[in-house]
Amino acid sequence: MPSRELIKDKLTSNAARVDAYIDFILKPRRPETLYEASRHLISAGGKRLRPFLVVKSCEAVGGDAEEALPFAAALEILHNFTLVHDDVMDNDELRRGAPTVHTKWGVPIAIAAGDLLFAKVYEIMAAQKLSSWRLRECIRRATEAAIEICEGQVLDISFPGTAEVTEEDYLFMVGGKTSALFKACAEIGATVGGGSKRRVTALGRFAWDAGIAFQLVDDYLGATADEKTLGKPVGSDLREGKKTLIVIHALSHASAKQRAKIKSVLGSHAAGDGDIAEVNAILREIGSIDYCLRKADRYVAKAKARLDAFPDTGAKGDLLELVDYFTKRSY
Amino acid sequence: MPSRELIKDKLTSNAARVDAYIDFILKPRRPETLYEASRHLISAGGKRLRPFLVVKSCEAVGGDAEEALPFAAALEILHNFTLVHDDVMDNDELRRGAPTVHTKWGVPIAIAAGDLLFAKVYEIMAAQKLSSWRLRECIRRATEAAIEICEGQVLDISFPGTAEVTEEDYLFMVGGKTSALFKACAEIGATVGGGSKRRVTALGRFAWDAGIAFQLVDDYLGATADEKTLGKPVGSDLREGKKTLIVIHALSHASAKQRAKIKSVLGSHAAGDGDIAEVNAILREIGSIDYCLRKADRYVAKAKARLDAFPDTGAKGDLLELVDYFTKRSY
Repeated sequence: MPSRELIKDKLTSNAARVDAYIDFILKPRRPETLYEASRHLISAGGKRLRPFLVVKSCEAVGGDAEEALPFAAALEILHNFTLVHDDVMDNDELRRGAPTVHTKWGVPIAIAAGDLLFAKVYEIMAAQKLSSWRLRECIRRATEAAIEICEGQVLDISFPGTAEVTEEDYLFMVGGKTSALFKACAEIGATVGGGSKRRVTALGRFAWDAGIAFQLVDDYLGATADEKTLGKPVGSDLREGKKTLIVIHALSHASAKQRAKIKSVLGSHAAGDGDIAEVNAILREIGSIDYCLRKADRYVAKAKARLDAFPDTGAKGDLLELVDYFTKRSY
Repeated sequence: MPSRELIKDKLTSNAARVDAYIDFILKPRRPETLYEASRHLISAGGKRLRPFLVVKSCEAVGGDAEEALPFAAALEILHNFTLVHDDVMDNDELRRGAPTVHTKWGVPIAIAAGDLLFAKVYEIMAAQKLSSWRLRECIRRATEAAIEICEGQVLDISFPGTAEVTEEDYLFMVGGKTSALFKACAEIGATVGGGSKRRVTALGRFAWDAGIAFQLVDDYLGATADEKTLGKPVGSDLREGKKTLIVIHALSHASAKQRAKIKSVLGSHAAGDGDIAEVNAILREIGSIDYCLRKADRYVAKAKARLDAFPDTGAKGDLLELVDYFTKRSY
């Protein structure tokens, strides 16, 4: 079986265990609507990459996967809390092929459902048997991630209206929106597994870099993949005015004429397919699309190197495999 | 100095210390908008009843107020997180005389600001030196309160559309929206102060009952006070369709004709002052207003009795005084 299929199977079987735990945590209580709304997005699917990161980081330092499971569930719940609120903020109607929580129950219930999920993260963590120091570390790291996610999301919202977004701004935003939680997952898994401070830090850095690579590949696919792979029309990122690394690079390397063309399409929902194709040709010509892909590759290599000092266990192999899995989605 | 003035002074001086701590915790970081929005409501004022409950409960079990201060700040931040989100959910434009966060910065920033405040609660708690058991207790109780607040808020939102709201439903809702956090404040203060399990429980029950009394007095004032005391037009609760205990009692004791009249005004923003006066006369005639006031008095007495076994310290006196202060606001 090729390793891509193998890692997919491992993700699936880990997801099943995590989901069973989440079901137990979110069992219906009064008012039922709130609990139904809270479970909605989680039930709609998702690859459960973050719980996998938690469990494998725990195993990579010699810990017991069983002990990591509640934390894996907690961090998947944290992820879903941010998605429920993000969908309200971004006014998105669909996610994972299903109507978003606010589309189905309205904004007030979606806000409350997100809040409930966030609270559940701490309910789970505080209920685990763990030394004071380790418990404190887990809470601290999950909370730090939550704060950085808020910061990243607010920055992301502000980008379309910001004239000059730099690569540094972009990395700060992506760090918050994706890497912060990846990092917390790895650190918490390793902390629960009894990892040394050095190992916890290394796994955190591995996950941080992997998160950046993950987002860069997202940007790359957004500019190159077809509608079927994307799950949304070609050119959506451009029409939504998303300041991807590709666009940021292009705007700072384009001629005045090219820049004007890019800006005419960016954020314009009325842009035609011809305009999109023309801008994509410019992005390719300037080398922005290549630049993004090369950068993703560099982050993948950087991430993997973080684990060099780790013994060659199955868990380490799975973590390396995971990075390939989610950064080589289609190219 | 009359004791009412004295307790007011104590609240003010405690608030100053709590506010200084909160300022430190919410110091500006990137993105500035997010932090500005997060501080907005807290800066707009508030009596800081909850931090007072934390500090005095700590002292009432012989603890050091200094150690309770970070927790007092954390719980005031938790309270403000719920207010920021509630204002979005209820679409309220003003609070504490200032525009609400979403009115000033828009719904997305208000959601993110609330989320950030919620995260800060745990950042503060996890940073305190406390035994593993006590830390776990504090996190558990704050989280339980947050969950009950979500539940109470969703129930509250659903009431106007619910045909038959019972007194039991009402108490469940008020328990979530007000008492749960009061209880957590007292329990956490007492836990930090090193109180025995029995003392922690007693203070929690005291605060729970006090919270119900607080809400009942709110309902009473909503039906009897003038515009100046209320800070909103007479009859607002009726026009907004609020299912107060007064309305719930009236609907189940009214004649068919009276019930029809009440229902014609309930939730009708177009109801004239004459209609409001007529319904208020009905509520008085049925005895619903008296019923609410008597019930508030009973909860005050019940709350105070919870502290019977406590030694007569200054802190105990302040807690008893506090209940009088906020349940005898104007009648």
